[in-house]
Amino acid sequence: MDSASREAANPLDDLDISSSPGQEKSLATTTTHPLAGTDFSHGDVGAFPPIPRAFDLYRDAFGDGRRYAYSRYRGHQDVREHVAHHVGEFTGHPVDPAREVIVTPGTQGALFLALSALVEPGDKVAVVVPDYFANSRIVTYLRAQTVPVTLHYQEPARAGELDLAGLADAFAAGVKLLVLSNPNNPTGVVYTSQQIHEIATLAGRYGAFIVVDQLYSRLVYPGASFTHLRASGISGDHCLTLLGPSKTESLSGFRVGVAVGAPHVIDRMEKLQALVSLRAPGYSQAVLRCWFTEPPGWLDRRIVEHQAIRDDLHARLHATDGVSVRLTEGGSYMFPQLPLLRVSAVEFRALLRTGHGITVTPGGEFGSGYERSFRLNFSQQRDKALEAVAIICGLATELAA
Amino acid sequence: MDSASREAANPLDDLDISSSPGQEKSLATTTTHPLAGTDFSHGDVGAFPPIPRAFDLYRDAFGDGRRYAYSRYRGHQDVREHVAHHVGEFTGHPVDPAREVIVTPGTQGALFLALSALVEPGDKVAVVVPDYFANSRIVTYLRAQTVPVTLHYQEPARAGELDLAGLADAFAAGVKLLVLSNPNNPTGVVYTSQQIHEIATLAGRYGAFIVVDQLYSRLVYPGASFTHLRASGISGDHCLTLLGPSKTESLSGFRVGVAVGAPHVIDRMEKLQALVSLRAPGYSQAVLRCWFTEPPGWLDRRIVEHQAIRDDLHARLHATDGVSVRLTEGGSYMFPQLPLLRVSAVEFRALLRTGHGITVTPGGEFGSGYERSFRLNFSQQRDKALEAVAIICGLATELAA
Repeated sequence: MDSASREAANPLDDLDISSSPGQEKSLATTTTHPLAGTDFSHGDVGAFPPIPRAFDLYRDAFGDGRRYAYSRYRGHQDVREHVAHHVGEFTGHPVDPAREVIVTPGTQGALFLALSALVEPGDKVAVVVPDYFANSRIVTYLRAQTVPVTLHYQEPARAGELDLAGLADAFAAGVKLLVLSNPNNPTGVVYTSQQIHEIATLAGRYGAFIVVDQLYSRLVYPGASFTHLRASGISGDHCLTLLGPSKTESLSGFRVGVAVGAPHVIDRMEKLQALVSLRAPGYSQAVLRCWFTEPPGWLDRRIVEHQAIRDDLHARLHATDGVSVRLTEGGSYMFPQLPLLRVSAVEFRALLRTGHGITVTPGGEFGSGYERSFRLNFSQQRDKALEAVAIICGLATELAA
Repeated sequence: MDSASREAANPLDDLDISSSPGQEKSLATTTTHPLAGTDFSHGDVGAFPPIPRAFDLYRDAFGDGRRYAYSRYRGHQDVREHVAHHVGEFTGHPVDPAREVIVTPGTQGALFLALSALVEPGDKVAVVVPDYFANSRIVTYLRAQTVPVTLHYQEPARAGELDLAGLADAFAAGVKLLVLSNPNNPTGVVYTSQQIHEIATLAGRYGAFIVVDQLYSRLVYPGASFTHLRASGISGDHCLTLLGPSKTESLSGFRVGVAVGAPHVIDRMEKLQALVSLRAPGYSQAVLRCWFTEPPGWLDRRIVEHQAIRDDLHARLHATDGVSVRLTEGGSYMFPQLPLLRVSAVEFRALLRTGHGITVTPGGEFGSGYERSFRLNFSQQRDKALEAVAIICGLATELAA
């Protein structure tokens, strides 16, 4: 704010969040169409309700306020023990509850703390393109530089493929950190075991650190096989895995997530959490105790139900002239590309929203070059989602250039 | 992490949170003393339970998950309208729910977002000493420089007095931001109306911004009169007020707070919240609807009950040779100073904790020069708190140099 800093503008000034998921709630819509409220920017917790025991755990923690209202900044000890046990089992690599776990306000909280703990101003950070839009935004906010590494996902018949030569070049040029999501957000790509091992090997060769966002790693469809980076030979001091129950498990409204991995990074994250929000909500943390201990068959059913919606939507999009789309291997995102239209992507989305009450997330949020794409979170009511996608396809056909 | 940034060490490296409130939960204690668990580092929600309707509102929001799981990053509209109406009435200055309110993960979240939105690397920021320890820590984390401005509070018979000449010097030397809490944390000082008006006038003269943390402004004891900075003639574009229901109202476990004020700062805070945690917990936000609409007499009773504990504890401390303490005018903190002891402050606190199960917050957390002081949050069970303070006084007498 003094003269020196007026020159260094705040990176927040250039950040545009008006089309980010959830923000479009602030836009007026006058439609009375029956699909009004089909919001593909996030999942529908009405269609896929939270894990059955979640609310009971919350109520019990509230009732035991002396124990649960406040916690150490990294989280309640019993909750960290539960997380360590189950995440260790799930990922195939043990987790120390005292040193290797932090509970955060959502997995977004874990991502922000992790990058803040690892990135200094002026650093170069490898960011996969396309990938979760907050990755590069946080890097920019931290006054560091993103080095894009391309994920090839457009060829439906082939496995998604990270440009490993590009990644090696980035590491050779001084990049010491890679951020990626697996399953990939927004494309639904699940990296092959070979790719994950090669990424781990490259990081090891260059002493680089990897933050991997595995938020969707419990929602993987038959045919894909998920490989946990932390169990792929990477040094435990050079890897952090982000997880949470906000998506597949529909617990987003509780705002809890976790980071698991390198103790020195967890320590720094806890220090920063002391400044940012003190702790994940004390009562919400207790809800994590139903995570990974859902009723028998619950997760399998959730996967089958999502798979059915995926297949419906994919078939409809695939059958539309000029639309290209990859079959989602994991997660509940789909990232179709529209044909060339006679209207801009902004106008197209405005027509969807004001004319039909349908909200999608613009591809431009995920990197430049994706303006013709959009992201759908298909964790929705099946019939309503299919009807909305039919409208999208119809409008795309009608407006094709 | 590259060579350029290795020189610029991460400010988190020097941050020590081991004695911060709540963190001492991680220390082993083997005592079987009946007072074990007397934790003066924060309030006891068992002794002072949450606002009666809080949990019902949470349950209803959870039940209406489609509406409440996700919100715009600045918070649910209905919640912002409630907050704007009541905070406007409470502070005596209207609040625009669309432009002047953000809901955050606790009031700590509001403080972090506010300072991050206002402070650039290299800035100088005026910070009151003593004051809430996170103020200067966040400034340091943001690579800015704290300029201390002294609050004189030691003379029990006189009103607490901010060093206004020092503040004017700071403004004249280029400081464009002042951060302070009122009631002051940790001393319990409530600034006089004259002081608040003079602070507002000084800020106006130099075009400076003020962030005022009024977290405890609903818990003011008879004899003190509270003055809201935002209603004291300061420009609406140069003031942000932080509030929340975590303390007096015992809703800390829900993790919600608010910031109210300058629209351009609220905008930046929302952008940063998009990166930090997306939003305050969706269901918890709804709990704010019982804030300021408690049952008749509820708040008055809470004040009377805290006043009784304050009087007991103050009398006991005041009667102890060599202990000096100011009568708390607002909030539930007390900041006594011990006589010179034959042991260090660290050893004294360790004796309290391991020998008697009593936790206090070290004065050193609030600035250098306060090592002989400690902070008590007296929102506790009355008898247990008095017994614990008697032990503290006894030990101080026994160990006096």
